Amino acid sequence: MNKLVIAGSLAFDAIETPFGKTDKIIGGASPYIALAASFFGVTPQIVSVVGGDFPKEFVSILNSRGIDTDGVKIEADGKTMFWAGKYNNDMNQRTTLATELNVFATFSPSLPESYQDAKVLMLGNTTPVVQRNVIEKMHHRPDFIVMDTMNFWMDSMPQELDTTISMVDVLTINDEEARQLSGEYVLLKAARKILSRGLKYLIIKKGDNGAMLFSKDGDMFFAPALPLDTVCDPTGAGDSFAGGLCGYVAAKGSYDFETMKAAVIAGSTMGSFCCEKFGTENLQTLTNEMVNSRVETFRRLTSFNF
Amino acid sequence: MNKLVIAGSLAFDAIETPFGKTDKIIGGASPYIALAASFFGVTPQIVSVVGGDFPKEFVSILNSRGIDTDGVKIEADGKTMFWAGKYNNDMNQRTTLATELNVFATFSPSLPESYQDAKVLMLGNTTPVVQRNVIEKMHHRPDFIVMDTMNFWMDSMPQELDTTISMVDVLTINDEEARQLSGEYVLLKAARKILSRGLKYLIIKKGDNGAMLFSKDGDMFFAPALPLDTVCDPTGAGDSFAGGLCGYVAAKGSYDFETMKAAVIAGSTMGSFCCEKFGTENLQTLTNEMVNSRVETFRRLTSFNF
Repeated sequence: MNKLVIAGSLAFDAIETPFGKTDKIIGGASPYIALAASFFGVTPQIVSVVGGDFPKEFVSILNSRGIDTDGVKIEADGKTMFWAGKYNNDMNQRTTLATELNVFATFSPSLPESYQDAKVLMLGNTTPVVQRNVIEKMHHRPDFIVMDTMNFWMDSMPQELDTTISMVDVLTINDEEARQLSGEYVLLKAARKILSRGLKYLIIKKGDNGAMLFSKDGDMFFAPALPLDTVCDPTGAGDSFAGGLCGYVAAKGSYDFETMKAAVIAGSTMGSFCCEKFGTENLQTLTNEMVNSRVETFRRLTSFNF
Repeated sequence: MNKLVIAGSLAFDAIETPFGKTDKIIGGASPYIALAASFFGVTPQIVSVVGGDFPKEFVSILNSRGIDTDGVKIEADGKTMFWAGKYNNDMNQRTTLATELNVFATFSPSLPESYQDAKVLMLGNTTPVVQRNVIEKMHHRPDFIVMDTMNFWMDSMPQELDTTISMVDVLTINDEEARQLSGEYVLLKAARKILSRGLKYLIIKKGDNGAMLFSKDGDMFFAPALPLDTVCDPTGAGDSFAGGLCGYVAAKGSYDFETMKAAVIAGSTMGSFCCEKFGTENLQTLTNEMVNSRVETFRRLTSFNF
C-alpha cells in the first residue's frame, strides 16, 4: 500500500458549539488527516509529538485503522498540546479561548526509516519552519507535497511561510486567507497570483460554500459542501478534507487534474462526515460503504443533463 | 414555440459600482428575464408598464430578440419607474439610493389574448398583490408558475406574500431571505419548511456562492457560480437567472427534477453573463454558441470521475 506521511499536531481540544460542549477530547490536525486518509487505501504515517498524558487507547484506535504512529514522539515528562475554542451560532466563526503548545513548542520532527519511501507528504497547519523541517528530513523529496496553513502565519512569519510555500505542490487555504496572501479580492485573480509562486495546485476552502481547485494551467473545479441537517462541530473539517484529498491521490499515485478533482470530492466527503459529530468521533466509526455512498451523493448533487 | 409570460418592472436604473457608473440605463426585472429566456427557444411575453419617456429603441431591441411586448402598457403622460443603487467593493452588498415607482405605483396588469395560452408564468420581484393579480388574469392557470420575491415584502406585507406563495410552483429567494421566511438558520431545514407551504421547488440563490434547488420530494441540486475575472455589475443577475431557468423549462414543457437541474444551470449561465457588463448590455449581444459553450464550462466545473 502506498504511504502518506502526515506531519501535524496531536492535541487535546475543548470545544463549545451551540449543540454542546466537550471535555478534553483528542484533536489536533494529524488524527483528522490520518483517519480521513485511512478510507482510501493508503498507509497514513503520522509525525508528531505528545506528552506523557496522551491516552494510549487513542493511539490504538489510530493503529486499528492502519495508521502508523512510529513517528509520534512521546515526551513522558511533558504535556500534550491543548486548544480550546467556541463557535458562534452560524458555525462559520470561532473564537480561540486557549492555546497551550506544551511539548509542541519545541517540536523537532524526526522521521522513522519506514516513512522515507512515502510518495506523498501532507503538512498539517503548523509553523512553516516545522513544515520545512519535515520536508528536509525526507531523504528524497516526495512526489507530491500538500501544505495547509492559516492567516496566523501570514501575519507572524510571512518570509518563512513564503519559503515553505515555494517548496510544495499544493496549498490549501480559505477564501479570506487567499485574499490576504495575494492582495486580490476576486478569487480567480487571487488564485492566479498565488499559483505563480510555483505551486501546481491551489485549493481555496469556503466552509459551507464548498471548495475550489485551481491548477497552474488555468483549470478550475468546484466541489460544493454537502448541505447537512446538523453541523455539530466543524473542528477538524479542513483537516479531514486534507486527509481525504491526500489519501485519495496517494492511493492513486497520480497527481493530474482529473485525479485532483476526485481527490477534492474525497476531501469534501470526509469534511462533511467530520462535521456531523464532535471531534474525530464520526471518522472513527465510518465504513467504506458510507464513504462511497456519500461520494455518490456529491455526484448527484451537481450532475445534470442539459 | 412555447410561450413564457413574464410579469415584472421595466425601469431606468442608475448604477454605481467600483468599476464605473451609469447614467439612466434600461433596467427593471422584466428585460433581464425576457432577454435571458430568449436564448432557450421560447417566446417571452412581457407584462409591464412604462411612461411616455421610455425609449422605443429599447422596445425594438426586445422585439428583435423575439420578445413580445404587447402586454407592456404605455402611460404617455407618466414617468417610467426609476431606481438608483450603489455597490460596495465586495459586490455582495448594495445600497438603494432612490426608488421612484412612478407609473408602476398604480400598475394594474392586463394580459393580451395572445398571452393566454402560455404554459409558464414568471412573476418577477414586485408586490405580491400585483403578482397574484397577474395569476388571476390568466384564463387558465399556467402549468408552471415561478415567483421571485425579496425580504422587503416579507417585512411589509407578509400575509399577502403568503397567499401568493401558496399559488405558485417555484419560489426563488436568497439565503438570508430563506432564513427570514422560515425562521431556520440551517438552509436544509429552511428549505423543508418553506417547501411545506405547497411549493414543488425552492431555489435558494447564494450570489457568488451559487444556487441550490430543493424539491418537495427531498431532492437537492447545487449549481456553483462561475468564478469570473470581473464582476462589473451584479444588477439583474437574479433576474437573468430566473430568465434562463424559466426559458429552459418553458421550452422543454416539462417540470420534473431532471429538467429543473438543467434549468438551474441555464439560469446560472445567464446570471454569469449578466454580471460581466453593465445592465442588459451583455444579454443583448450574446450568441447561442456563447451560451452553449458556457453551459459546458459549468459541466466541466463540477464533473469528476471517482
